[in-house]
Amino acid sequence: MTQLKEAKNGVLTPEIKYIAEKEKIDPSYLGEMVAKGRVVIPANKKHRNLVPCGIGEGLLIKVNSNIGTSSDHIDLEEEMAKLKVSIEAGADTVMDLSTGGDIDLVRRKIIGASKVPIGTVPIYQAVIEIVEELGGLIHLTVDKLFEIIEKQLSDGVDFITVHCGLTLKGLEMLKAQGRDLDIVSRGGAFLTTWMLYHERENPLFEYYDRLLSIAKKYDVVLSLGDSLRPGCLADSTDRAQIHELMTLGHLNKLAREEDVQVMIEGPGHIPLHEIETNIKLEKSLCNNAPFYVLGPLVTDIAAGHDHIACAIGGAVAGWYGADFLCYVTPSEHLSLPSVDDVREGVIATKIAAHAADIARGNKLAMEPDKKMGMARKDLNWERQMDLALDQITARKYRQNRLPAQNDVCTMCGKFCAIKQVKEYFHG
Amino acid sequence: MTQLKEAKNGVLTPEIKYIAEKEKIDPSYLGEMVAKGRVVIPANKKHRNLVPCGIGEGLLIKVNSNIGTSSDHIDLEEEMAKLKVSIEAGADTVMDLSTGGDIDLVRRKIIGASKVPIGTVPIYQAVIEIVEELGGLIHLTVDKLFEIIEKQLSDGVDFITVHCGLTLKGLEMLKAQGRDLDIVSRGGAFLTTWMLYHERENPLFEYYDRLLSIAKKYDVVLSLGDSLRPGCLADSTDRAQIHELMTLGHLNKLAREEDVQVMIEGPGHIPLHEIETNIKLEKSLCNNAPFYVLGPLVTDIAAGHDHIACAIGGAVAGWYGADFLCYVTPSEHLSLPSVDDVREGVIATKIAAHAADIARGNKLAMEPDKKMGMARKDLNWERQMDLALDQITARKYRQNRLPAQNDVCTMCGKFCAIKQVKEYFHG
Repeated sequence: MTQLKEAKNGVLTPEIKYIAEKEKIDPSYLGEMVAKGRVVIPANKKHRNLVPCGIGEGLLIKVNSNIGTSSDHIDLEEEMAKLKVSIEAGADTVMDLSTGGDIDLVRRKIIGASKVPIGTVPIYQAVIEIVEELGGLIHLTVDKLFEIIEKQLSDGVDFITVHCGLTLKGLEMLKAQGRDLDIVSRGGAFLTTWMLYHERENPLFEYYDRLLSIAKKYDVVLSLGDSLRPGCLADSTDRAQIHELMTLGHLNKLAREEDVQVMIEGPGHIPLHEIETNIKLEKSLCNNAPFYVLGPLVTDIAAGHDHIACAIGGAVAGWYGADFLCYVTPSEHLSLPSVDDVREGVIATKIAAHAADIARGNKLAMEPDKKMGMARKDLNWERQMDLALDQITARKYRQNRLPAQNDVCTMCGKFCAIKQVKEYFHG
Repeated sequence: MTQLKEAKNGVLTPEIKYIAEKEKIDPSYLGEMVAKGRVVIPANKKHRNLVPCGIGEGLLIKVNSNIGTSSDHIDLEEEMAKLKVSIEAGADTVMDLSTGGDIDLVRRKIIGASKVPIGTVPIYQAVIEIVEELGGLIHLTVDKLFEIIEKQLSDGVDFITVHCGLTLKGLEMLKAQGRDLDIVSRGGAFLTTWMLYHERENPLFEYYDRLLSIAKKYDVVLSLGDSLRPGCLADSTDRAQIHELMTLGHLNKLAREEDVQVMIEGPGHIPLHEIETNIKLEKSLCNNAPFYVLGPLVTDIAAGHDHIACAIGGAVAGWYGADFLCYVTPSEHLSLPSVDDVREGVIATKIAAHAADIARGNKLAMEPDKKMGMARKDLNWERQMDLALDQITARKYRQNRLPAQNDVCTMCGKFCAIKQVKEYFHG
């Protein structure tokens, strides 16, 4: 049984009940949304100690943090610290994108230590092992790819990115169309190389039924990846991207029929004025499956501050209906993130998600803001610190420059407008 | 003669010609926009070495940085460093909001050292001097207020915030309506106290003609302040705020008739879904005068990261037509910003302005992004660093974690998607 199958049968699973209570919505409504595939619950039966989390329509927008080693930087302790800081800062899920060192070990340690759903991209490990064993990714076999997928799922991974929508037809379209920055998806680049070398269809597309049966066994959510997502604004919303999105819509339908939960991945680099179109297209072409966007980044030139470009795009995407925001850290496009970068990335994306939740009219969302307004009126600084989305940083700023009078701050000092009005109007 | 008067006479001033060339637009079109009051050029005749800057329709969105001492933190050298770092990071204008120490000295030093337009809020100094001399702001006289204004203008200040739209009627409306966080504008709070104590109309409203004649003399832009801007999301777009905006629209008309340049100030704290309404209202109620927004902040709980809440709001505001974004630093609501905070605030707001310029279709805006896409395709790291909006931070991130192979970065290492595709497709 999967969450989707149970919901179709009208059963309110413990996960559905837990999420409904946490988000203060009607459990029957949530059950209907899960049954329709508009909400997914990534909860691998093998992931112990998991606190369930729902992603999709009617729920608070969720935030994902990416961690993991690279071939150039391998430090298990650092990755465990990134997991910890991600969860503390409010990440709802974490993806382990490790491509260096003992990938099995890193993944198992992360799953074991995580109460939030963990995602992976199995093709990374498949390619890395084949390159190490046989010298090139062209030697990857279909069986090897599915073995790795099954191994990761049996470890308890809750959702996996699978680039099933990349097809020979899509690559033809990409070539005919031309682009500034062909392919920036790692999984997409691996598969493209393999497909063109062998002149064969993408195995994740050709053997999609095999993938569905493994996913169903563990009740893992398939996060259908966007191999042809734009890597720069100039390539945004082009024919190659939308063709793949349509394929993902078709694959979503097949998965739902097999009771496998699906979400759809989206870009990437999109200018501000094209975000609405991208969200509405996904909802329409993919039958309202939850939309998981990477960013989007609203400019290509914010390197060193891409978490801010991402917060702008993520807030607007969430407002228009994106359900799940993948964070970007300040080190994006430059280096593997440090623990501090990870924290900064999660906070920036949480701000974006929260701003979008307010704009979408989520009833829970305005509560802390309402309280913060009152705490400011009361000049209650302890309460302001407690209500801050990032209490640690807020306290640090206040401590660094303490005011002479402790009911104000050093920005306006004794000329604080709120104090002035409070004393004059309210005695 | 003012820029507005010259433009009305069909004269293309050197400032109009310079700005048109810099922004690659037709000087005659720019002249028309200035004549209509849709573009302002803050350029006090007394500000030597000023590089002209235009603000308004058809131009790139401009970014302002606020600096200045407070009663709790006075350090002239630090403020000069903030001026320097603001301009280096790309601020188009700087406001000196000093409220501590020798305010005349700080202002004169800043104007003398600045090639960008400088703004001030004269009522701060007027109130501080009266409080020091006579023990309370209620002793402020109309003459004293105008003396300070004239002193600041004669020093070469290019634009001033004047809270002319606050009226007894507006305060009545505020009281009748109720609010979570009454008044958060410092100038607004000062004037309110004075008005209610004396039961007199706001002198900046009552003697607006006197203000216009001083502004005309120096050709200073009046930035009509929003005393009743919302200080929290719950108060956003309420009757008190919009009533004041309508008054500002009327005052804008009077100023244009007298050939005085005007821009309108806007909030503040606004949820994402109300930003469009706020921008369109200003354009409609104020006859398309340039709109200068503070933020807006799209959540109240981002203390320690309010530059990010501001970047989200500023990008959306700019996209819908705001012309001028006042930055917010990470220390907003907590303390006077440090030099580093100022830099971070300018960069965040520059990212927002740039994303909005792209969305608005400004022809210049996409150029660096287009080049960055090509530099990434070429794996040309030096060029990527040169093209980054903040080269210093981008280089720092790259240097901190250098890759084993210098054509990639440590995020993906040898599994770089762009490298993979480049080697396979392009040889």
